[in-house]
Amino acid sequence: MAAETTVRIGLLGFGTIGSSVYRLIQKEHGQIVEATGVDLQVVRILEKDVNLERPGVPQDLFTDDIRTILEDPSISIVVEVIGGIAAAFSFVEAALMAGKNVVTANKQLLANRGAHLFELAKDMGRQIRFEASVGGAIPIIRVMRESMIAADIHTVFGIVNGTTNYILTAMYRGEGGYAETLKRAQELGYAESDPTDDVNGADAAAKMAVLGSIAYKSRVTMADVDYEGIEKVTAEDVAYARDLGFVIKLIGAARLVDDRVSVRVYPALVPQSHPLAAINGSYNAVFLQGHVIDEIMLSGPGAGGRQTASAVVADIVSIVSTKTAGFLQNCSCYKVLDFMPAEDMCSAFFIRMKVEDRAGVLAQIASAFGEQQVSIQSMIQKGQGDEAELVLITHPTVERGFHAAVEKIAGLSSSKGAPVFMRVL
Amino acid sequence: MAAETTVRIGLLGFGTIGSSVYRLIQKEHGQIVEATGVDLQVVRILEKDVNLERPGVPQDLFTDDIRTILEDPSISIVVEVIGGIAAAFSFVEAALMAGKNVVTANKQLLANRGAHLFELAKDMGRQIRFEASVGGAIPIIRVMRESMIAADIHTVFGIVNGTTNYILTAMYRGEGGYAETLKRAQELGYAESDPTDDVNGADAAAKMAVLGSIAYKSRVTMADVDYEGIEKVTAEDVAYARDLGFVIKLIGAARLVDDRVSVRVYPALVPQSHPLAAINGSYNAVFLQGHVIDEIMLSGPGAGGRQTASAVVADIVSIVSTKTAGFLQNCSCYKVLDFMPAEDMCSAFFIRMKVEDRAGVLAQIASAFGEQQVSIQSMIQKGQGDEAELVLITHPTVERGFHAAVEKIAGLSSSKGAPVFMRVL
Repeated sequence: MAAETTVRIGLLGFGTIGSSVYRLIQKEHGQIVEATGVDLQVVRILEKDVNLERPGVPQDLFTDDIRTILEDPSISIVVEVIGGIAAAFSFVEAALMAGKNVVTANKQLLANRGAHLFELAKDMGRQIRFEASVGGAIPIIRVMRESMIAADIHTVFGIVNGTTNYILTAMYRGEGGYAETLKRAQELGYAESDPTDDVNGADAAAKMAVLGSIAYKSRVTMADVDYEGIEKVTAEDVAYARDLGFVIKLIGAARLVDDRVSVRVYPALVPQSHPLAAINGSYNAVFLQGHVIDEIMLSGPGAGGRQTASAVVADIVSIVSTKTAGFLQNCSCYKVLDFMPAEDMCSAFFIRMKVEDRAGVLAQIASAFGEQQVSIQSMIQKGQGDEAELVLITHPTVERGFHAAVEKIAGLSSSKGAPVFMRVL
Repeated sequence: MAAETTVRIGLLGFGTIGSSVYRLIQKEHGQIVEATGVDLQVVRILEKDVNLERPGVPQDLFTDDIRTILEDPSISIVVEVIGGIAAAFSFVEAALMAGKNVVTANKQLLANRGAHLFELAKDMGRQIRFEASVGGAIPIIRVMRESMIAADIHTVFGIVNGTTNYILTAMYRGEGGYAETLKRAQELGYAESDPTDDVNGADAAAKMAVLGSIAYKSRVTMADVDYEGIEKVTAEDVAYARDLGFVIKLIGAARLVDDRVSVRVYPALVPQSHPLAAINGSYNAVFLQGHVIDEIMLSGPGAGGRQTASAVVADIVSIVSTKTAGFLQNCSCYKVLDFMPAEDMCSAFFIRMKVEDRAGVLAQIASAFGEQQVSIQSMIQKGQGDEAELVLITHPTVERGFHAAVEKIAGLSSSKGAPVFMRVL
C-alpha cells in the first residue's frame, strides 16, 4: 500500500530513547505505512556532537543548531527526548511557536512547566502529546484522555517507578537490604548510576503530577505533590509486612476528594492478594477507578528504550490522524482545583516501635491512639530482652490524628527510638 | 465552556446497554462538553414498542421506523446496541450507506460480518468503532489500533468472558460444582437465563475473532476460531489443578506464528503466580505481547451496562475528534493470512486418567507418550481400590503428537474410561 501522508520529523536528542525512536521508525517503517498510511521520516536530529559516527544513521541528519529544525517548514513534528528541564523547555516552546506539533517523553518538563506548554499549544492550534512520559509502552495517557471521557475517574493509583519496584521486589524475595539490592539494580542496569530521583520518589511524583493533571483536568505541578521515597525502608519492615500478609510497594496516588485533589507518592503495604502485589521487578501498573467503570488496570514494563520508543511512535501517528488542536488534545477546560491537605486524608497505617517491656506500656500506647480515634486492626508483639517490639496495623484514620498519636507515643518515657510507620493500601 | 460541535445521534435499541448509553450521555453531558467541546444529543431511538412509557425519556424520541433515522441528515452517528446478527447487520449497512458513522457493541455482528462492514465503511469514507464489543470499559480495541502501531504484536491472550470466569472462580473457591455455581451465577445476574453462548465458548470466540482481526490486520471470522467451553470442567479437575499449583481459566488466544494466525478458546490451567490467576469473578483481562513492548496487560470488569456505555460514549467522541475514514479507523490494508492448524500448535497439557493399578501399566503409558516425543513434567498417582488415578502435566509439545498418544492410551486394555485433558498456559 502506498503512503497517503508523509510526515517529516525533527528529533531532539539521540541518547537511549532518541536512538530507539530512530531505529524503531526505520525498522517498522513498512508496517507503519501499511497500518496507518503514514510515511514517517526523521529528517533532522539535534545533537551536540554532530561529527560522532553512528553506524546506520546518515551523518548529514545531525545538526547542532535548533534553528535548522525550527525554520524547516517541511518538518511538522518535533520529538523532544533530550530530558532535563531548561533546554527542553526552550526547545519545545520554540517548536510550538514555530507551528510544529510536539511529542515529548519528558515527565519533569511536564510536571514543572506543563501548564504553560499546554496553553501555548492550544493558542497555536497545535498538539503536544506525551504518552512516553509515564509508564513506557503502557498507554495510560491515551486511555485517560480518550477512553475515560465519561468515566468519572476519582482515583488513579499504582506503581509508576520501575527502579524502586525492582529494589522492593528483590528485598521482598529476601535478596538483601536496601543498599545491597540498589547496588545490584545498578549493576544490572535497572537503576541509574545516580539513582537519587528514583529512590527518593521524585520521578514517581513527576509522573503522578502528569496523571493527576489529566485525570482531573487540573494543573498539578511537582510542587503540589507530597512525596517520599524508599530510602528508609528496611529489610525488617519488609519481613514484618510479609508476616502480616503484605508486600511493600512505592505507590503513587492521585485522588479527587470533595472536588479537591490530592497527589502523593509513598511506600505502602499492599495486601499480597491485591493485583499490585503481583507487579514485580521493573514493571509498572496503574489503576483507574471511577463510578462508571468501577476500575481498570493497565500494566507492563515501565520503561526501556524500545517500549518508550513505541509510545513515541504511537503519539506521532496520533497527531497525524486526529484533528489539530481543540478537544482531547489540548483541552481548554482546565479547572483550578484546590488541593486536599495531606493531614486531612484518611489512611490505614503500619507502625513498628520499640518500647520497654513492662506492665502498663501497652495501655499508654493504646490510650494515645484512642485519644485520636485511631483504632487498631492487628498487632504483633515480640520480646527482645527488656525491650519489646510492637507492630500494629490501624484501621483507616484521619492522618492528622495518627500523626498526633505517634508524636505522643514517641515522647513516652517507655519509648525506645522513633516509631517507623508506613501507609497501608 | 460552550460546546464547539453538536453531534446528533440515532440510537438503535433501548435494552440494558441502550438505556445505559442514553442515561450516561444525559448524566455526563456537562462533563463531556467540558472535556471535549462536544455536545452529544440522542435525537432518535429505534424500538419496537414506541408507546411504552420510559421514565425520564421523552416519548417522541422513539420510532419504530429505521428510515426516520437513516433519512435524517442531521444525524451523523448511529449507535447499534440491538444485538443479534440479521437486523443489526441490515441496519448498520444501511447507516453506513446513508453516510453515517457507526458505533456498535455487537461482537457477533463483527465476528460474522465484520469484513463486509469494514470494507463498506472505508468505501463510504465513514468510521465504524466497536470498543464496547470486547471487554466492557477496558479500552483494548483502541489500545491495539492506536497505541500498538509499531509494537509488532504476536500474541493476544486472556480472559474475555465474565460469566465463565465467575463460575470458574466460584469452583476454585470450593463453592460447588459446575451446574451448581452456574445456577448461582444466574440467580445473581452474572449469567443469563440462557447461558449457552457464554459457557460453550462462543461469546469468547467472537471476541477473539475481533481481537485477532485487529492484532494481525487480517480477517478472522467466527468460523476461523477453534473454541470449546467450560461445560466439562469438573470440581475434581479444579481440585487437582489447585493441588498442582494452577487455577483453571477459560483462555482466548490469538497468535501469529510464522505469518499464520491461530485463534482459539479453551479452558486452561494457569499457574497461581500468573497475573491472570488473580483475575477473578466476572473480571476480564487481556495480555498483548510483542517484540517491541514485551507485554502489557489491561484488566477490568468485562461487561455491565455502565461500563459498556462508557466505551460507547468514548467511541462517539473519538469519531468526532479524528479525521474521517482513512488510516487507523478503516485500514485499507487487510492481509489475507493463512490459519495455523490447531494440531500444529505447541502446548503443554494436563491429563487425568483412570487405569488398572498393576505393574507395567505406567510403562505402557510412558511409552505411548515417548513414541510421540511428549515428555512429562510432573505426575501424581492415587490408588483407588484396584484402580489408580494418574494426573500428569507435560512439557510443551506439538498437539498432534499429544492427541495421538492420548488416543493410544485410551485404547489400552488397562485404561478405564476416556482420559480428561486440558492445556496449560
